[in-house]
Amino acid sequence: MPGPLTLGEIASRLGGRVAGDPRTPISQVGSLERAGAGQITFLSGPRYKTKLATTRAAAVILGPEMEGLTTLPRIVCEHPYAYFARLSQLFNPLTVQAPGVHPSAVVAPTARLGERISIGPHCVVGDGAAIGDDGCLYPGVTVYPGCLIGARAIVHSGAVIGADGFGIAREGEGWVKIPQIGRVVIGDDVEIGANTTIDRGALDDTVLEEGVKLDNQIQIGHNVRVGAHTAMAGCVAVAGSADIGRRCTLGAAAVILGHLSIADDVHVSAGTVISRSIHRAGTYTGMFPFDENASWARNTALVRHLAELAERLRALERKGKDHG
Amino acid sequence: MPGPLTLGEIASRLGGRVAGDPRTPISQVGSLERAGAGQITFLSGPRYKTKLATTRAAAVILGPEMEGLTTLPRIVCEHPYAYFARLSQLFNPLTVQAPGVHPSAVVAPTARLGERISIGPHCVVGDGAAIGDDGCLYPGVTVYPGCLIGARAIVHSGAVIGADGFGIAREGEGWVKIPQIGRVVIGDDVEIGANTTIDRGALDDTVLEEGVKLDNQIQIGHNVRVGAHTAMAGCVAVAGSADIGRRCTLGAAAVILGHLSIADDVHVSAGTVISRSIHRAGTYTGMFPFDENASWARNTALVRHLAELAERLRALERKGKDHG
Amino acid sequence: MPGPLTLGEIASRLGGRVAGDPRTPISQVGSLERAGAGQITFLSGPRYKTKLATTRAAAVILGPEMEGLTTLPRIVCEHPYAYFARLSQLFNPLTVQAPGVHPSAVVAPTARLGERISIGPHCVVGDGAAIGDDGCLYPGVTVYPGCLIGARAIVHSGAVIGADGFGIAREGEGWVKIPQIGRVVIGDDVEIGANTTIDRGALDDTVLEEGVKLDNQIQIGHNVRVGAHTAMAGCVAVAGSADIGRRCTLGAAAVILGHLSIADDVHVSAGTVISRSIHRAGTYTGMFPFDENASWARNTALVRHLAELAERLRALERKGKDHG
Repeated sequence: MPGPLTLGEIASRLGGRVAGDPRTPISQVGSLERAGAGQITFLSGPRYKTKLATTRAAAVILGPEMEGLTTLPRIVCEHPYAYFARLSQLFNPLTVQAPGVHPSAVVAPTARLGERISIGPHCVVGDGAAIGDDGCLYPGVTVYPGCLIGARAIVHSGAVIGADGFGIAREGEGWVKIPQIGRVVIGDDVEIGANTTIDRGALDDTVLEEGVKLDNQIQIGHNVRVGAHTAMAGCVAVAGSADIGRRCTLGAAAVILGHLSIADDVHVSAGTVISRSIHRAGTYTGMFPFDENASWARNTALVRHLAELAERLRALERKGKDHG
Repeated sequence: MPGPLTLGEIASRLGGRVAGDPRTPISQVGSLERAGAGQITFLSGPRYKTKLATTRAAAVILGPEMEGLTTLPRIVCEHPYAYFARLSQLFNPLTVQAPGVHPSAVVAPTARLGERISIGPHCVVGDGAAIGDDGCLYPGVTVYPGCLIGARAIVHSGAVIGADGFGIAREGEGWVKIPQIGRVVIGDDVEIGANTTIDRGALDDTVLEEGVKLDNQIQIGHNVRVGAHTAMAGCVAVAGSADIGRRCTLGAAAVILGHLSIADDVHVSAGTVISRSIHRAGTYTGMFPFDENASWARNTALVRHLAELAERLRALERKGKDHG
Repeated sequence: MPGPLTLGEIASRLGGRVAGDPRTPISQVGSLERAGAGQITFLSGPRYKTKLATTRAAAVILGPEMEGLTTLPRIVCEHPYAYFARLSQLFNPLTVQAPGVHPSAVVAPTARLGERISIGPHCVVGDGAAIGDDGCLYPGVTVYPGCLIGARAIVHSGAVIGADGFGIAREGEGWVKIPQIGRVVIGDDVEIGANTTIDRGALDDTVLEEGVKLDNQIQIGHNVRVGAHTAMAGCVAVAGSADIGRRCTLGAAAVILGHLSIADDVHVSAGTVISRSIHRAGTYTGMFPFDENASWARNTALVRHLAELAERLRALERKGKDHG
């Protein structure tokens, strides 16, 4: 972490235009509500302008159309949120774990570890698995045998990469297990949240392309492909063999059924179950609207009678026509 | 654990009124179905009175309005369920793990541990983190650096406290990671279920106030505030910056979207997605009603045509008025 | 793992009829798309017949009604998928972990371990717990005190068996914890996915009967009974005291509310919330249909006005009758 930088120094490193005193010293980032002396904050949209009026931050990052909302020293740039992210990276490390392999971690002799790696306590890296350069596994991550993770990975605690996919075949009353002999193959610059699970392929591999970002408690089934730079919020479930495009976003607790194909640049809202393939970019939603319990009960009872309501409507229409 | 207590001794410790023989000895609690000699059970509502008729328990705890349903020795009190909980605590320990720090746990030298603590195998407590007095961390809990947990915490296996929030900013095709420099701050008397994850704040802290109870597999996003004594059932997902009131209850697998505000004393039913702020206490529901698959398919197809149905209804109404 | 087997040898071990050269050597299984020399694939349905036309597999397993779709050497049998599973087991081990108890695992002296067991790094087996013969616990599994697991169990990383159920009783503003003194009792031939959690009973036991198969990230509440050979896909949540029959299947992210009873042979679709008991075998669904966001918003707004729409429809019908 560097010492303080002036606004001018920041702009010369990261771009943007300084308005106000370029000698303003900045040593950390902060929120509109809590930032104080020496801290810079950001305005991501007009929605927060009342908070801007009362912030005690030393400076602010904002877009050109909002420049006039404050007289604080400021950096004006096209993408204030991304700018803020880059700036925060100057003051704060991306990961907070000591380098090296913690003595309590169990790394198979046949596993391959890249340079400048950090593997936390109680991690397990199985036979023939590989972790790329600059990777960070927080405590308690398990990478099953044969799974490959690219460079600059950040994997949070409790994530499990490469457990068996859910492959079972009916036989009489019971089930026969299908050995899961594929791997998990993960590209560069991927982040995986705490307690997220990514299953190994049944026969071929499960694949996460470069730049994929997964939040916590996500489940990725066997033989899924997740296209580059797709991001998923917490608790998403992706069933086996789904093929998800590039630059998609999936909202919290969304569910993608198996064997579907999702085009590039598809955005799925939180709480939505995707039950058919989506062939066109766009935003898709399937949240059931919540309501006060009594209203919900009254209206919802009718959902189970919609076909009947529609039939009665049709009958009235026919009658109207006959009498019209 | 004490030896047997008589009903009379129990009532003198915990209150309530004894009906029947106060010398009845009790050494353990049990269910209506399985309780046997020396065991006391409870009746939480009239729904279970047929089971009461056949119980082999030695005694029963119930409310005054149900006192006449049995001739068994009994303790009559206002809140039989809470009474039962208190009594069970007399016979059973609240946590079952040996005191002290297990040698396989990794506790940073800068972490602060309270008195009478129990930290199980393979736990990790990071730099500058703190666990209050009488805290119990079951095996495999990870507490990231800087996170604070109050007194009498019970944290179950696999819980991850303080992993990075999901903070990423779009930049071109990909994403820039925003360092997550806030903490998790947890009050006294909090219980956290197995494999639950609570993310650290992006800039400010994620806060759980005193008495919060979280079941398993819950995801709490960054900068969430959970008010005192709020309880969440399994698999709830709370997205970033949601502000949840005091004494709320969230049913299993409920989803709270980000940046929302939920008033005190709000009850959210299971499987409900809360997509707007709730400003008034009450019960809110948004479960889609299930049905036999064929009926479901028939009715559900019409959900996607509701606007059209409503339009046709309006047309008929207009026509009726014209002809009326 | 054996060396190559000929098609004839395979059929003499596992049954089925060979068509084409019975001397065709097979050393591994593979997918229709990727199988190559020495590999056998399978056709599970007519949907994949175009892929069959271009496969480079050395042989294929298929049903009698599809035998004519290829001239490749083939094994014809009634249940190609189960046959394939059995065959894959000949070439591949069911579990990939070394036998024995890893030195980093913490097994209580009072725990009982069966024969030919494999307990991975950082596992914990508590006081009085038991793991049956041929069981495999992958890294980081926690089995709380007193919990019993049958023979041939496969438990994936991060699973937590026997954490406290969510038992709390309201008392004033807060909650009293109810000690969870039941156990988890699991039958033979059960597989449990990564990061799945199964809570111990409050008073009586939580029970999984033989042959139950659980995918990842599933939550089983206290005192649930899961009948034999029932299978659940990822992220299912089963609330406390639910009683689920035999041979059921629950789709991804389905939710079963508490204190319900589900008959044998019930199939619940993905994303469905089961809010009432189901007394008859069959398939049940409650997915809200997703749509493009704008259409969804238009139609969904009306769900909250269904009762009103129905009332207006009734008014028109009455009017029609009066004028009819």
